[in-house]
Amino acid sequence: MRQSRLFTKARREAPADEVAKNAQLLVRAGYIHKEMAGVYSYLPLGLRTLNNIVQVIREEMDAIGGQELILTALQDKELWSRTDRWDDEKVDNWFKTSFKSGGETGLAITHEEPLTRIMTAHISSYRDLPVYAYQFQNKFRNELRAKSGIMRGKEFLMKDLYSFSRDEAEHGAFYDRAREAYAKVFARVGIGNRTYVTFASGGIFSDFSEEFQTVSEAGEDTIYVHEQKRVAVNKEVLSDEALGKLGLSRGDLVEKKAIEAGNIFHLGTRFSEALGLLFTDEKGERKPVVMGSYGIGPTRLMGIIVEVLADNKGLVWPEAAAPFKYHLVSLGHGGDEISKIADALYDDMQKAGVEVLYDDRDLRAGEKFAESDLLGLPKRIIVGKEAAASGMFEVVDRASGAVEKVSHANLLSSLQPPASSL
Amino acid sequence: MRQSRLFTKARREAPADEVAKNAQLLVRAGYIHKEMAGVYSYLPLGLRTLNNIVQVIREEMDAIGGQELILTALQDKELWSRTDRWDDEKVDNWFKTSFKSGGETGLAITHEEPLTRIMTAHISSYRDLPVYAYQFQNKFRNELRAKSGIMRGKEFLMKDLYSFSRDEAEHGAFYDRAREAYAKVFARVGIGNRTYVTFASGGIFSDFSEEFQTVSEAGEDTIYVHEQKRVAVNKEVLSDEALGKLGLSRGDLVEKKAIEAGNIFHLGTRFSEALGLLFTDEKGERKPVVMGSYGIGPTRLMGIIVEVLADNKGLVWPEAAAPFKYHLVSLGHGGDEISKIADALYDDMQKAGVEVLYDDRDLRAGEKFAESDLLGLPKRIIVGKEAAASGMFEVVDRASGAVEKVSHANLLSSLQPPASSL
Repeated sequence: MRQSRLFTKARREAPADEVAKNAQLLVRAGYIHKEMAGVYSYLPLGLRTLNNIVQVIREEMDAIGGQELILTALQDKELWSRTDRWDDEKVDNWFKTSFKSGGETGLAITHEEPLTRIMTAHISSYRDLPVYAYQFQNKFRNELRAKSGIMRGKEFLMKDLYSFSRDEAEHGAFYDRAREAYAKVFARVGIGNRTYVTFASGGIFSDFSEEFQTVSEAGEDTIYVHEQKRVAVNKEVLSDEALGKLGLSRGDLVEKKAIEAGNIFHLGTRFSEALGLLFTDEKGERKPVVMGSYGIGPTRLMGIIVEVLADNKGLVWPEAAAPFKYHLVSLGHGGDEISKIADALYDDMQKAGVEVLYDDRDLRAGEKFAESDLLGLPKRIIVGKEAAASGMFEVVDRASGAVEKVSHANLLSSLQPPASSL
Repeated sequence: MRQSRLFTKARREAPADEVAKNAQLLVRAGYIHKEMAGVYSYLPLGLRTLNNIVQVIREEMDAIGGQELILTALQDKELWSRTDRWDDEKVDNWFKTSFKSGGETGLAITHEEPLTRIMTAHISSYRDLPVYAYQFQNKFRNELRAKSGIMRGKEFLMKDLYSFSRDEAEHGAFYDRAREAYAKVFARVGIGNRTYVTFASGGIFSDFSEEFQTVSEAGEDTIYVHEQKRVAVNKEVLSDEALGKLGLSRGDLVEKKAIEAGNIFHLGTRFSEALGLLFTDEKGERKPVVMGSYGIGPTRLMGIIVEVLADNKGLVWPEAAAPFKYHLVSLGHGGDEISKIADALYDDMQKAGVEVLYDDRDLRAGEKFAESDLLGLPKRIIVGKEAAASGMFEVVDRASGAVEKVSHANLLSSLQPPASSL
């Protein structure tokens, strides 16, 4: 895409009303727009980034047998009353409103209830199990505070997968596969090395749930990391008893600030019993389905990537998330020789199916480089005097700053089309 | 995908609580699930169909220079008060709720206000214009009645594009291109021949707006069609004066029931003036931006396709919308010769990148054919005794019922990968 056509404009100054680094940089770079506290729109560069993150997660959910669907924001009060999660005294972050046709409704905080009800129409026998269903859907949470940018919104995108299994053994096997799939997601988006499986409070059906916590100074959680085992314990469950169960000793743990990037839960039969999701097993007995839930917030994940990878010059995107892999920056002016070389290279890249943002604007080099740093695309290709004189292009790696001189021929042969497209 | 793995089950009976044909068939076929009146979830087959429709629209919006973004559901009361569209007396279908942090909010009924405000941060000069921005985003409308299935929901998906132009001439040129793009969308999803540009009430800035009305007995609107000119007039504006302006004579018009499938509006400077979206023109003068809006509801469009193309046996999808292009139906049982041939063909189709639903279940042929008719995929490939005996497959066209006998070699060479993928 030609940058002269992109409607968003980067700003020099950080917005005065943002304290979180992720929101400051994303607003400055024109990726997002703040509508209200905790409510953000995604502008073209932001939506492309978000869609790339969504696609990484989708591929990993499909790989473990997930079937994609999409549920609704508006929720049925009666359904949530049956699981005792409607009353404000039980769940304190509903947005509630009412139908003109009569009756109350609320905006989905999560989706166990509606999906379990749907499954009662499709699951009746052990032959129908297991089922893994997931969605990318907005969740709404009426948070009192919202100072973490897109890491904690009142309206945010969530990938939630729910598993429906015959028994604990079948559930456990999938739960392990889901944990592995999650690790792949975090590795693919560039934060695998600082993200730890973290034991947290479990609920009724297990001692622990598992969170994926990404170490960051911006984190709201405190975790205790066992670096060698690549696991951690959330402060909320840290006790000698818990450490005993987990086979960890206190002396090996290091305290860190961290951000929750995902979680996997054993739900047992809590929802299937309350909502009548039963199946007939091989012996003809009726049993409740054993469930699990598995969440990653793509918008939050985008925020985490910014928090941990951005530097003092701006955003730094891993290839899998970047809105464009290449930033082609022309230093030409008004149709000169340099501009023509850059135009031709852009056409070649377009033909090769490479996703490239082409800064074809007539601005000073310093201004262009500063904005390119802010936008954070992985590779910057500079077309300057040298390109016109000797046919060599400078390619700068945004993350490391490493500079390579590449000939036109070598550049074209090295261009990679996107790994996955939406 | 193997149908034995698809979690949704088709039903024989129409749901008792649906009167609209689209909802009856889509619920029976397992494409959608009714959460509440006017609120539907999209199950795997339904979501695939919806995504295909979305992709057709996206391609046509990109082709006319649209830049995709995504705005929010939660809306800022203060912003809508400035355009006088917050009060229930002015706009009667808001869902309103409040923040725990204080203040009211509402669920987006449309998005002129927030997008215009965003543009004030990015448009300041004539050099920044024109801009065309669009999104696929849920809208929420607190409708009293909801009896039209997915054609009129309380929560529904909308593609809305907004144009921002320097003057009426630039606006008018884009408006004409948008009209053409819309005609392409309706043609690509199989309803072009019964969809008419229809003159409807215009608002402050023009005599007429233009609707795209699809002729159907299920329609809520009455239109007067001029078949030769391929245009129509909505009953709401039918008068001698209007006909005079449009150069149509009453005698050439035929009354029809129709469903609104899309619309394009001149907004003039109503929103840009109210929200301060001004630009500096070539002479240094500050002027309000001239706007237009262009809407198509992909969920409604999916409902319209069902209403006009389905027959008494079930759904009938055009290729561009179908969740899978091919329905491979094996009449084999328990791993017999026929099952092996079908398995091998399925593998070949998967390798060729063809999107195919493979009915590998051990059921009676009659049951499988009835369900295949209900699901409505464009081409059914039957693997029966003849395939085992002579290597010939029956290929049935769902829309026409035409049957072809095709050899394995010819079948493979004729398989077409999907025209576009998400």
